Amino acid sequence: MNSAEDRITEWFAVQRPLDPARFPIAIGDDMAQVNLGAGKSVLITTDMLLEGTHFDLSEASLEQVGYKSMAASLSDCAAMATRPLAAVVSVGLPAGYASKQLKQLHKGILRAADKYDCPLAGGDITSWQKNGGLAVNVAMLSVPAGCEPLTRKGAKVGDCICVTGPLGGSRAGKHLDFEPRVEEAIAIASSAKANSMMDISDGLSSDLARICHQSKVGALLFQDAIPISEAAARTADPLASALNDGEDYELLFTLPENEFKKLLSRWHRPVALTCIGSIVEGRGVKLRDSSGHISSLKPAGYDHLSKKEIL
Amino acid sequence: MNSAEDRITEWFAVQRPLDPARFPIAIGDDMAQVNLGAGKSVLITTDMLLEGTHFDLSEASLEQVGYKSMAASLSDCAAMATRPLAAVVSVGLPAGYASKQLKQLHKGILRAADKYDCPLAGGDITSWQKNGGLAVNVAMLSVPAGCEPLTRKGAKVGDCICVTGPLGGSRAGKHLDFEPRVEEAIAIASSAKANSMMDISDGLSSDLARICHQSKVGALLFQDAIPISEAAARTADPLASALNDGEDYELLFTLPENEFKKLLSRWHRPVALTCIGSIVEGRGVKLRDSSGHISSLKPAGYDHLSKKEIL
Repeated sequence: MNSAEDRITEWFAVQRPLDPARFPIAIGDDMAQVNLGAGKSVLITTDMLLEGTHFDLSEASLEQVGYKSMAASLSDCAAMATRPLAAVVSVGLPAGYASKQLKQLHKGILRAADKYDCPLAGGDITSWQKNGGLAVNVAMLSVPAGCEPLTRKGAKVGDCICVTGPLGGSRAGKHLDFEPRVEEAIAIASSAKANSMMDISDGLSSDLARICHQSKVGALLFQDAIPISEAAARTADPLASALNDGEDYELLFTLPENEFKKLLSRWHRPVALTCIGSIVEGRGVKLRDSSGHISSLKPAGYDHLSKKEIL
Repeated sequence: MNSAEDRITEWFAVQRPLDPARFPIAIGDDMAQVNLGAGKSVLITTDMLLEGTHFDLSEASLEQVGYKSMAASLSDCAAMATRPLAAVVSVGLPAGYASKQLKQLHKGILRAADKYDCPLAGGDITSWQKNGGLAVNVAMLSVPAGCEPLTRKGAKVGDCICVTGPLGGSRAGKHLDFEPRVEEAIAIASSAKANSMMDISDGLSSDLARICHQSKVGALLFQDAIPISEAAARTADPLASALNDGEDYELLFTLPENEFKKLLSRWHRPVALTCIGSIVEGRGVKLRDSSGHISSLKPAGYDHLSKKEIL
């Protein structure tokens, strides 16, 4: 938990501690939970995608940008094992954009909205008067899916550290066309007692460090167990790609070993579940290689603010 | 209802008609309402503010930008006579921004959050890798305030057309430091039976045209009754300023004459309520001048997309 974004987020959180009765889950998790009384609550997330940072229009179509902007927020809903409910989308348009471009973007938004039954319920369209690239913001609501939302806080010593799917190499194309693990997350949470969960958006090394920081535990990863994607296998350093690439949008979760066994016995989905390590005493993430040598693993995933002087 | 933004918004709405049982209020109003069952619902709005379009950093401090971004969404909550609940804020940072600038922005966000009891519950911080100005998106949740949310749809022939406060001239400074009419809107809705309501964000001529379009009625404004702000009075054309300037963030609402009388008799707030016209048969907005002459009033408020080829 050393990224510049994490540090400024923590600083924000302590400026105004939120009432846990109103906000059972607040700043610092994938979504905030807002209590509405009478046993009802909603969760909300917001994500801004910027041209040149999150997508490059020389390699991505506007339809893909629309899909990705929704899918990233759907992945936040999955990260907490919650059910997506509705999205509202704001678009900041560069000069020269007209209805044609807006309709292409809208088509991708609808593709994700239809597939995950998360309708587009409203939005805002505005234009840069000065130079600016395309900015797309998705705010999304979800509701608990029959169980308490899973957070980054509950990892316990002895838990298996698990992931869905293989990791790494998303820049080869998957980052534009991934499948948010919404149904998988709900299936995991309803099949076994998981202690913590998040989605891997910035890279395993950085995101696991967040679970450790917030759960006040350490993690030991087993290098040989980490599932490496075909795209990552084609890179110069497949392991580094799987650890640090970011935008995997797979689930990262922890649960006791017996719960993991129960989960596996009930699992009939095509997406693989892999135990890649254990939650241990201490802090930070360590990696055990094939020879049994253990070394410290620095968070080397994507840091949105790393080039800036933050705090 | 002729703006480019309105036309593309209507086009979006018809692509995927929303289930009114799930979304009692959807695309085309100030907020969307999401039904949660058990008599509970939430409303959501999203607004993106762009540097150079909505604020100019040569005249506005970052603290003011933070306040304005929250206040614009709080005004949406007011527009429907609902109670703000929580906000999430996404920020797209230009190159060269560091924690100092983020903290200034955050200070303004907190000023509005504290004043209107609408906590900042989460957010997203990201940076332009290519050229781009500051982009701030606020998504906000609200809940009904003991009555049904008011929409743009319910205006009835014979209704008084009313506004809070004086109009026009917001560019002289008010647009950076206005007071969203949250308590006033709830007081109006709980004191009398209003038929429609919205906030004036793009200018009276454009926003009243939206109520007419969505309610399938016409409007007749009485020129002499329109309350003109001191800032508008100092412009070359005070009436045009009051009709078209935009960013007034005052309430525009309609209600039967006897309800307006009841409302006035119960009104003890410092903000003025003024009847400025009547809802009439037909469509579109007309203006009656001092001599009794009636002319058609074109929507000439701010159109976010007017320079573009839209539909």
